[in-house]
Amino acid sequence: MGEFSYIDWLRQQTPPAPRVLLGPGDDAAVVAWAGAPPMLVTTDVLMDGTDFLLNEIGPERVGRKAMAVNLSDIAAMAGRSVAALVGVVLPKTGGRPLAEGLYRGLRALADEFDTPIVGGDTNSWDGALVVSVTVIGEVVGGRAVTRSGARPGDWLMVTGPLGGSILGHHLDFTPRVREALWLHERVELRAMIDISDGLAADVHHLCEESRCGAVLVAESIPIAEAARRMNDERSPLDHALGDGEDFELAFAVSPEDGAKLSGMVKIGEFVESGLWLEVDGVQRALAPRGWVHGF
Amino acid sequence: MGEFSYIDWLRQQTPPAPRVLLGPGDDAAVVAWAGAPPMLVTTDVLMDGTDFLLNEIGPERVGRKAMAVNLSDIAAMAGRSVAALVGVVLPKTGGRPLAEGLYRGLRALADEFDTPIVGGDTNSWDGALVVSVTVIGEVVGGRAVTRSGARPGDWLMVTGPLGGSILGHHLDFTPRVREALWLHERVELRAMIDISDGLAADVHHLCEESRCGAVLVAESIPIAEAARRMNDERSPLDHALGDGEDFELAFAVSPEDGAKLSGMVKIGEFVESGLWLEVDGVQRALAPRGWVHGF
Repeated sequence: MGEFSYIDWLRQQTPPAPRVLLGPGDDAAVVAWAGAPPMLVTTDVLMDGTDFLLNEIGPERVGRKAMAVNLSDIAAMAGRSVAALVGVVLPKTGGRPLAEGLYRGLRALADEFDTPIVGGDTNSWDGALVVSVTVIGEVVGGRAVTRSGARPGDWLMVTGPLGGSILGHHLDFTPRVREALWLHERVELRAMIDISDGLAADVHHLCEESRCGAVLVAESIPIAEAARRMNDERSPLDHALGDGEDFELAFAVSPEDGAKLSGMVKIGEFVESGLWLEVDGVQRALAPRGWVHGF
Repeated sequence: MGEFSYIDWLRQQTPPAPRVLLGPGDDAAVVAWAGAPPMLVTTDVLMDGTDFLLNEIGPERVGRKAMAVNLSDIAAMAGRSVAALVGVVLPKTGGRPLAEGLYRGLRALADEFDTPIVGGDTNSWDGALVVSVTVIGEVVGGRAVTRSGARPGDWLMVTGPLGGSILGHHLDFTPRVREALWLHERVELRAMIDISDGLAADVHHLCEESRCGAVLVAESIPIAEAARRMNDERSPLDHALGDGEDFELAFAVSPEDGAKLSGMVKIGEFVESGLWLEVDGVQRALAPRGWVHGF
C-alpha cells in the first residue's frame, strides 16, 4: 500500500453488489455469482527498484517472487490456487533473455502449486520492469478464512520464523498454501493473514478487522536466523516485529485447537483491545510498525 | 503484443492442466474446475506513453480505457463481466488527484457494466503511470465464443464503423458487451474477436484460429467518420483496414443467421484460405497489417 490506499478508498466507494461477496480488508476478494461457488481473486504488481532490483537478482527470481506473493494471498484465505494471469511491461533493453528468465521463475512456482498460467498481456517500454500477477483460487471447505474472526482468548500463532527477510527470504520464500490447507482441514481458523507488512503491523490488521486486541510474547516469537544477521542498530526481535515480507501466516485459533497443532508457534493471545508486547512478564504498548509497500 | 509474444510462448510451454480449459489465441481464458462452471478471465496492462498520454488526456480517460479494453475482451467471448481487479503504479508526482481521477474513470465504466471493482494493489514509483486491470466474467449460454469456429461460407460481420480511432475513439469507445450478448442470444456466433490490432489483422487472427480464409469487400466496410478526418497519405479505407483499437466486434455467422441481424454490417465472407480484399469485384491479397500493441 502506498501513502494513501487506493483500494481501501475503492472499497468505501463501491456499493455492495449482490453478485459479489467482498472480503473487506482481506488478502484476496471473494467473488460469487448465481450458479457458481465462491472463488478467490487477488492481484499484486511488482516494480523494479521497489520490490526487487532486477540487476542484482536477475529475472528468474523476479518472476518467482511475483507469483509467490499472490499465492501467499490465496494462502492467507486458506484457499487453493487454480490459475494465474501474468501482465508484464518489459524494458526494451532486456530482450528475450529477460522474458524467458522471468517466465522460468513464474512457471517454477506456478508448477509447484499446480496453478497454470492461462493468459496475460505482454508489453515493452522505455521504463523499468513491471510484473502484474493475478491468481484465482478455490474457496476450500466451503469457507474462506478472513481477517475478522479472532476473539479474545484465542491463541495467536505463526507458521515460521520472522525478520531479516530483506537478506533473501523476500525473494525465495515458499508461500504457505500447503500449511494453510493443512490447518484449515484440521482446526477452525478464526482469522488469518500473511505477514507482508511486518508481524506487528499485520497482527494489528487482524485486530482491527476482528475488533479486538492482542498480546505478543517476546520470548515466544520465532526469530529468523537472517534477523540475527542484520547486524544493525535494531535488535533481532525488532526485526522480527517490524520487517516486512516474511510471508509466514499469522492466525487465530481457540486454545483447544491451538494445543493440537505441532509445527506451529504460539506467539501470543488475542485480548479485548490494544496491541501489546510482553517482555519478561511485563506488557507494554506495541506500535503497529511495519514495512510499508512501495516506499 | 510485443516483438515476440510472451503469452503465445507461455501457451506453448504450459502443459494442459485438467482443471483449466485454455482458450488458445482467444481474448480471454476459460477456466473451470470441479464443481464450478467455466468462467472467463482476462488481463491488460496499459502504460503512459504507449497506450495513452496522461498529460494530454488526464487520468479519468486513462481509467476508463483501462477498464474498457478488458471488458472488450469479455465481449469478444460473448461473456458477461462479473468483477474487476485493478493494479496501479502511480507516478509520485501525481498525488491524490491522479488516483482519484483514475478511479472515476475506472468506476464509470465498471458501473455501466455492473462490474464491481473488488480488489487490487496500489503502488507508487518514480516511473510513469501503469494500470493493470483483470476482469472475471461468466460464460453465457453454456458456451464461450472463441476465434476458432468460422467456416467457409460464413458471413463476416462487424458491429460498427472502423478507422481513425487514434482521434479519440480509442479512449472513449464503449465495449461491445451488450451487442455480444444480444448476438449470442439470437444466433450461433461461430467465431468472434474484438478489433484491437486492426480489422485486417484481427480477421487474420480469426482465419488462423479457424483454419480458413476470408474475403473482405471494400465497399461494404463501414468507415468511421474519424477515418475520413485523418487527412494523411492513407485513404479512409486503409485506416479502416489497418488502424488499431476500434474495439468493434468482428464475427462469423451462417448466412441464414446473418440475414436475420439488423444493425450489424456484413463486410465479407469466410473462404477456404487466404486473406483477400475485393474492390470493384476484383480480389487481391490483403496483408494482415495492423497496429501492434506496445510499439
